[in-house]
Amino acid sequence: MSEVAEKVIGGDVRAVARLIRDIDDGMPGVRQVLKELYPSTGNAYILGITGAPGVGKSTLVDQIVNHLRKRDKTVGVLAVDPTSPFSGGAILGDRVRMQRHSLDEGVFIRSLATRGHFGGLTQSTRSAIDVLDAMGKDYIIVETVGVGQDEVDVVKSAHTTIITVIPGMGDDIQAIKAGILEIGDIFLINKADREGTDKTLSDLRLMINMDHKKYEEGNWKPPILKAQAVFDIGVKELLEEIDKHNRYLTEFSGERQVRRREDKVRQELGDMVKNRLIEEVLDKITGTGEFDKAVESIVEGKTDPYTACDNLVLPAIGVPTG
Amino acid sequence: MSEVAEKVIGGDVRAVARLIRDIDDGMPGVRQVLKELYPSTGNAYILGITGAPGVGKSTLVDQIVNHLRKRDKTVGVLAVDPTSPFSGGAILGDRVRMQRHSLDEGVFIRSLATRGHFGGLTQSTRSAIDVLDAMGKDYIIVETVGVGQDEVDVVKSAHTTIITVIPGMGDDIQAIKAGILEIGDIFLINKADREGTDKTLSDLRLMINMDHKKYEEGNWKPPILKAQAVFDIGVKELLEEIDKHNRYLTEFSGERQVRRREDKVRQELGDMVKNRLIEEVLDKITGTGEFDKAVESIVEGKTDPYTACDNLVLPAIGVPTG
Repeated sequence: MSEVAEKVIGGDVRAVARLIRDIDDGMPGVRQVLKELYPSTGNAYILGITGAPGVGKSTLVDQIVNHLRKRDKTVGVLAVDPTSPFSGGAILGDRVRMQRHSLDEGVFIRSLATRGHFGGLTQSTRSAIDVLDAMGKDYIIVETVGVGQDEVDVVKSAHTTIITVIPGMGDDIQAIKAGILEIGDIFLINKADREGTDKTLSDLRLMINMDHKKYEEGNWKPPILKAQAVFDIGVKELLEEIDKHNRYLTEFSGERQVRRREDKVRQELGDMVKNRLIEEVLDKITGTGEFDKAVESIVEGKTDPYTACDNLVLPAIGVPTG
Repeated sequence: MSEVAEKVIGGDVRAVARLIRDIDDGMPGVRQVLKELYPSTGNAYILGITGAPGVGKSTLVDQIVNHLRKRDKTVGVLAVDPTSPFSGGAILGDRVRMQRHSLDEGVFIRSLATRGHFGGLTQSTRSAIDVLDAMGKDYIIVETVGVGQDEVDVVKSAHTTIITVIPGMGDDIQAIKAGILEIGDIFLINKADREGTDKTLSDLRLMINMDHKKYEEGNWKPPILKAQAVFDIGVKELLEEIDKHNRYLTEFSGERQVRRREDKVRQELGDMVKNRLIEEVLDKITGTGEFDKAVESIVEGKTDPYTACDNLVLPAIGVPTG
């Protein structure tokens, strides 16, 4: 085993930080380390926190970390939300909010920017989760803004996904689209002292009940909670629901649990294959003089991009054009 | 030329609607039609409208359409925002807002869901823009929520991109991350009767001025406008800035304009090659018994996904494993 992998498993914060940065930068060397870490993963409980910008996700994460620390649980936080103050994405934001945890060795916080390489966000986040898992963190919290397929895919890796909304953000429950609704295990109405809370509550209840068939065979029915994260109101109750969902998952009948695990592995391996493919082949195609010539032809109006694409891709994978 | 392509160029609304649906569903047959349409594209002016959920993008789009119609311009609208009421994404939203344009033949509105196939959002939107362009629309408005790489890529196709924010959505200017800031040609503070407008204005100004170097050589400096789209306040001024930006683009010196066009073609062809590659090769890999066996091995703990991925991808593209 490499020194890096050993250090990560030993909980060396510097080694972990460097490895996550390398993952985020798409360094090819990380793949070997991740192979070595993999057998040490599978022990952390992964929480996904998602919601539109402005719903107070970072404050909520901060409070959850606090509660988990009181239970003596170690926590890793990954901010993959481009609007999160943790990730440095919010230009003039309050980046100091989490500083009360910055001297706590039981908490490790990192953000992922991950725009540099293909398939970046989902792949890097999954790898970073593996690293924090191998490092021995009891809980890993992944914060995402939950809009865009990448971000939805990210929270699919979570054991429990919490969808955060606030009352009165518009005419309707903003930022809850079909895809996001389906992945919600718990719904949380934050800033629940605001006008419109009851309407948001009943709207959410309606949406969940529309799906009632899903809950017939003893499936988990997402609870809807109210909170004011900034005053630590409702966070304890949220933790209790997370525990309940955790118990529900472990009480899955054996067959079902295997199927769930298989689905997850299938999805993750498929994504990884896709990203790898791009990484290995795309550079070869776009780096050739053929590609430059094709660009020129399109600019000069001699060909269209659809035909040019056929002529570049098909020979590279052994399919005859024409 | 195929009948479909002829009908689209002739402005047949049904043919256009069916073609866009086929594009959205990732039907392979559309590629031939798009090749035929391509020579008829390049005439429309493309507007990108982006901003976080709840900033009032749809109302703004509605008003812009109204102003353009008064100038006798035809308009196509593509909603690629999962939270937009146009796209049916907002569950209990106001979907009727745009109905005043629904009987106007000069306006064509479609939403793109595009989750079915790889690289979907960007690719489908670009193709749908080509279709509305070939159909003869003077303006094409693309509405996106602007979070996630896909959505950023989408508005890169626009001639003028308008970034919409509202005051007081949080501690800071939410949903404006570095990547989004860079693509903004015009900034619009909507709901500008709200408290905090002046602060948002000065924050935006600060951010834009931080980039001051960019504006030295006569480059476009994004103006910041205030509006209350719901009362049609500030929309006329927005249209004037769009005209100004349009003039700026056409007054580009020749060399510069060619470079800009080349960059765009290069980016779009690169994306298209990537998507095509995935479409052609990924199915072959994930459809094999080898893939199923790999999933099983991972579930049983006999291998890790990183190694399994190597073993699937590398032989498929002629690279020795090990």
